[in-house]
Amino acid sequence: MHVVLASASPARLSVLRAAGLDPTVEIADVDEDALLAAIPHATPTEKVTSLAGAKATTIARRTRFPDAVVIGCDSMLHIGGELVGKPVDVEDARRRWRRMAGGTGELVTGHTVLRMADGKIDRVAEGHAVTVVRFAEPTDAELDAYLATREPLGVAGAFTLDGLGGWFVEGIDGDPSNVIGISLPLTRRLLAGLGVTVTDLWSPS
Amino acid sequence: MHVVLASASPARLSVLRAAGLDPTVEIADVDEDALLAAIPHATPTEKVTSLAGAKATTIARRTRFPDAVVIGCDSMLHIGGELVGKPVDVEDARRRWRRMAGGTGELVTGHTVLRMADGKIDRVAEGHAVTVVRFAEPTDAELDAYLATREPLGVAGAFTLDGLGGWFVEGIDGDPSNVIGISLPLTRRLLAGLGVTVTDLWSPS
Repeated sequence: MHVVLASASPARLSVLRAAGLDPTVEIADVDEDALLAAIPHATPTEKVTSLAGAKATTIARRTRFPDAVVIGCDSMLHIGGELVGKPVDVEDARRRWRRMAGGTGELVTGHTVLRMADGKIDRVAEGHAVTVVRFAEPTDAELDAYLATREPLGVAGAFTLDGLGGWFVEGIDGDPSNVIGISLPLTRRLLAGLGVTVTDLWSPS
Repeated sequence: MHVVLASASPARLSVLRAAGLDPTVEIADVDEDALLAAIPHATPTEKVTSLAGAKATTIARRTRFPDAVVIGCDSMLHIGGELVGKPVDVEDARRRWRRMAGGTGELVTGHTVLRMADGKIDRVAEGHAVTVVRFAEPTDAELDAYLATREPLGVAGAFTLDGLGGWFVEGIDGDPSNVIGISLPLTRRLLAGLGVTVTDLWSPS
């Protein structure tokens, strides 16, 4: 059974590859702002799960793999009562880090897994996972060096756990793959709910 | 300043590379069993810190980089009152997983960082980190498939967080890089204690 990852995130692809899958990446051009504007009263978990579902179903409608499993995800950082995605520029990332440093946030990732049969969506499983992230306090020099790499600009919450940002995360409570953008244990359970055993999807390495 | 990693672990090297360092790997042939036999009353954290120190100092004495930072680490899983390293064979790994499944363990990693000057050990910093790991309950078929990959045989505690084992870890409480074998935030603090800013060690990517 083929696996399709409906996400442009290189970090999600790396997580899945390291965990034995070899998904085909197909990128959905979902207008995230418009979708979120359409559900103004949604909770953080409803927002990320809606975005994950929109990505997965958009790809399911057009994928060239008629019997695949399609996985869509969306991640945001919930901090200080606010739900944030990628920073808009270096100054935005710096402001956020000044607020995050020494504190905690919740990385929320929505997941939608679709099982296709004969080119149609046959079954759907969705869920979300929340991981608490405890941020370190980078010095001004460390923060300048981190921002200069531009890594924080490309990621939800302006930090990575699996890259340079790992130096500045003291710890987490929850699943680390969820912070990177796709929770492996949740995806395993969603697949099982669709009758798919994840180890059957492992590619020979 | 050059970074030397006194460890044969490919997972530790991957963590450091993903986090911007490009260390030279030098492998110390420390007789771990003999060292542990010499300190029978040591606590788990004393054991891993002693092993980390033995690896780092062995390499420091013979490295060809006279002004390097040398990092040594050692990891074990503390579970059910017992401290375990790598499993001896597939059956040992299976027995352990039957005991671990649905429960928790503590991944303990000892760290020693040595700052060399003119070919001599100038300053020493050491510490340990503990991360609680909550194991999922793989089905018999999933456990068989996991053992067949032989991945659990090469790692302390018979699981990985950054590989195939990630499907079977529900969550952690603590630093994920510590579970993989080297805590980035602790290493950052140990380096700072030696007057080294970690971002100054980042290689151009």
